[in-house]
Amino acid sequence: MSTNEELRETPLENSDGLTAAELEAQHPADAAEAIEGLDIPDQVKFIKQLPIKDAAESIAEMEPHDQQALVKRLNQGLAARIVEQMSPDDATDLLEGLDPDLRHALLIRVPAEERAELKTLLTFDPDTAGGVMNTEAVILDQDLTPDQAIAVIRQDIEDKEVPYYAYLTDQKDRLMGVVSLRDLLLAKRGIALKELVREQNLISVGYNVDKEEVAHLIARYNLLALPVVDFGNRLLGVVTVDDVIDIIHEEASEDMQTMVGAGADESTDSPVPFSVRKRLPWLCLNVLFSAVSAWVVHLFEGNIQSMAVLAVLMPIVANQAGNTGQQALAVMIRQLAMERFDRKRAWLAVLRELRVGLANAVIISVLVFCAVYFSSHQLMLASVMGVALWMDMMLGAFAGASIPLLLKELGRDPAQASSIFLTTITDSMGFLFLLGLAGLVLLN
Amino acid sequence: MSTNEELRETPLENSDGLTAAELEAQHPADAAEAIEGLDIPDQVKFIKQLPIKDAAESIAEMEPHDQQALVKRLNQGLAARIVEQMSPDDATDLLEGLDPDLRHALLIRVPAEERAELKTLLTFDPDTAGGVMNTEAVILDQDLTPDQAIAVIRQDIEDKEVPYYAYLTDQKDRLMGVVSLRDLLLAKRGIALKELVREQNLISVGYNVDKEEVAHLIARYNLLALPVVDFGNRLLGVVTVDDVIDIIHEEASEDMQTMVGAGADESTDSPVPFSVRKRLPWLCLNVLFSAVSAWVVHLFEGNIQSMAVLAVLMPIVANQAGNTGQQALAVMIRQLAMERFDRKRAWLAVLRELRVGLANAVIISVLVFCAVYFSSHQLMLASVMGVALWMDMMLGAFAGASIPLLLKELGRDPAQASSIFLTTITDSMGFLFLLGLAGLVLLN
Repeated sequence: MSTNEELRETPLENSDGLTAAELEAQHPADAAEAIEGLDIPDQVKFIKQLPIKDAAESIAEMEPHDQQALVKRLNQGLAARIVEQMSPDDATDLLEGLDPDLRHALLIRVPAEERAELKTLLTFDPDTAGGVMNTEAVILDQDLTPDQAIAVIRQDIEDKEVPYYAYLTDQKDRLMGVVSLRDLLLAKRGIALKELVREQNLISVGYNVDKEEVAHLIARYNLLALPVVDFGNRLLGVVTVDDVIDIIHEEASEDMQTMVGAGADESTDSPVPFSVRKRLPWLCLNVLFSAVSAWVVHLFEGNIQSMAVLAVLMPIVANQAGNTGQQALAVMIRQLAMERFDRKRAWLAVLRELRVGLANAVIISVLVFCAVYFSSHQLMLASVMGVALWMDMMLGAFAGASIPLLLKELGRDPAQASSIFLTTITDSMGFLFLLGLAGLVLLN
Repeated sequence: MSTNEELRETPLENSDGLTAAELEAQHPADAAEAIEGLDIPDQVKFIKQLPIKDAAESIAEMEPHDQQALVKRLNQGLAARIVEQMSPDDATDLLEGLDPDLRHALLIRVPAEERAELKTLLTFDPDTAGGVMNTEAVILDQDLTPDQAIAVIRQDIEDKEVPYYAYLTDQKDRLMGVVSLRDLLLAKRGIALKELVREQNLISVGYNVDKEEVAHLIARYNLLALPVVDFGNRLLGVVTVDDVIDIIHEEASEDMQTMVGAGADESTDSPVPFSVRKRLPWLCLNVLFSAVSAWVVHLFEGNIQSMAVLAVLMPIVANQAGNTGQQALAVMIRQLAMERFDRKRAWLAVLRELRVGLANAVIISVLVFCAVYFSSHQLMLASVMGVALWMDMMLGAFAGASIPLLLKELGRDPAQASSIFLTTITDSMGFLFLLGLAGLVLLN
């Protein structure tokens, strides 16, 4: 069977007539996407045809789910050679997602030196600097001159992923400074590199620092790479800006998705059972929370029986206060994603949301008051609706701004299920305000 | 009055005892934050004390609102010198936010050469590659040798923001290739640079390409900078990876905030009236939409009067289907933010959401059916509730997945107000399903 015939069986357009040679000529990111479009058996065939280096680079660029599914189906000898060819941080990410048995089986097939390095990397928490760093930094003795350094780099640089900075260490491997290739080119000949970094305000992070904090630092100081050190200030590796872009993307997805109880790491390519497992617990929690709102309504069933128009107004209050709260919530979660907050600034931000909420709540409540009055000609009903809506919108603004801060204070992810907590509050209290006020004012 | 006395009047802790000399020694990002914490008059005093270069760098790092408020209060001579010192892309961002009169007044005080460049940059749409690029690329004649190139760079590099790539052009300024400093260091001596890039698959973008597409390309291909060209393939400038981090952050904020009708560019530092202006129109739209849901309930007021328990169940249906839809919505919006989609993949993603929704809807509906049955002992009521909830959750999953795609097809932002559209659908149809079914089954 020729390669072309095999391809005609594959479902996606982008595989039409694609050959291994063509795949090889593509950027690994494009090759990865083309491979992801194939059935697993065809993926395996393609990977076998590619040079091992191209196979490793393409697999490194695939989505985690697709990557793991493919590697499970490769024979272990090939898989181990691919792992060995990957950059250590990509290899660690791949190994972390595999079953312990398969991980172990692949590791024992990797040469001893690489295996030791991978095993070390696997001990770091994947959400920390140590978990996202790579270990192929260019390291220079601080006593070299710029010309000596350039000669070392010329020999050493070929395989390194981080070619724009070199790190200076002392005799005990402690990190002493960083120079860019540009610094080396501009430096006076003959001086020692350590003279270049004497006044340097070097930014580095410990291996156990959260990866989102690493992303903050790189973004804030416009760095291309950030060195990672141990407690003795010995250089362990570097986090590069391209990894940070992935972290920022992940962080944004996490916030938006966990806010409503979807999985932090879901994508449109996740298997259905995976997504169901992630979402179902939050939907169950949401049912329980809705039961609270329903119970509030239940308390006032008598009022609704005598005034069914209250049931007509209920969704307006709940919806409007929920929306007001979500606006505050979204702005607050994004701010927490981009900046650290001290308590004072956090409190000022809540105050600001209350002021925005106040303006909006007054305007919307007056509008709704007028609409209810002109459609029902019942002044008291319109007043109850206006006041209940105003109160619930203010509560929404306050809750939306406070929930992420509260979750953070409790050591939780500020976004997690925040939208679910918010709507529970705005729904149940909105019904309480509306039906309770109606009971007090209209029905006595 | 001494500087210290002035400082004691300022409100924030971080200004306590801070002097211009200390500010000068900080990274511009830290200096910017310290300045933002001061009152405007103190900000002006500090800026006057800083060397002009440090002032320019610090102001470039400030939030747009704070930056504009400060520059308006500086005397125009100083402001113009600061603009002149900024990198051209930062200066353009600043000028774009100012009143046309002030912008004009500052521009005429800038030397002719810089003024011409800024005026050109101001003609680009700020949301395109041309609007975010900077113009300080290192450009080399493609006929130079590596050693000649390094000599040119040694002379030329000092002020350039992009020191890790150099761009090769031909006699007509057309972009022919890109070399990194690393390539120059590794290259064989004596050959012409154009030999280095003969096989190169150069990635560049037109100046009118959307900035989010620029961010996609840089993230996808792990680039540090992307050259921007005109229709004649002449090099105009480069977009660097640190600008892309800002674009990705902005994009994530935009999506999360516009989804619920907050402003794309709001932050916890935005002035209150700015936020009110951004949010109020969407809250008004939301009121109108809520009126639709209320109208559906109104149609069934009779049913509610005879069975007030329906009003108790209403919020559960609306809330649960809304949450299901928001989970699909969040995953879809994030996917659209990170990847381009063809129609086929989009359709598969909707189908996936329907399958996830189906599993969740069946499980939750059965749970709720049981809960209603055991609390009310009314089999038909429990059945109506279960079926209505199931239908509305399925609709929520479908609407949540489809709304962003539909908005995109219509040429709109896929996130804009999507949560508002979604809850309108799940609320109104949920009430229709519940109250309509109850009318058919329970009350006839």
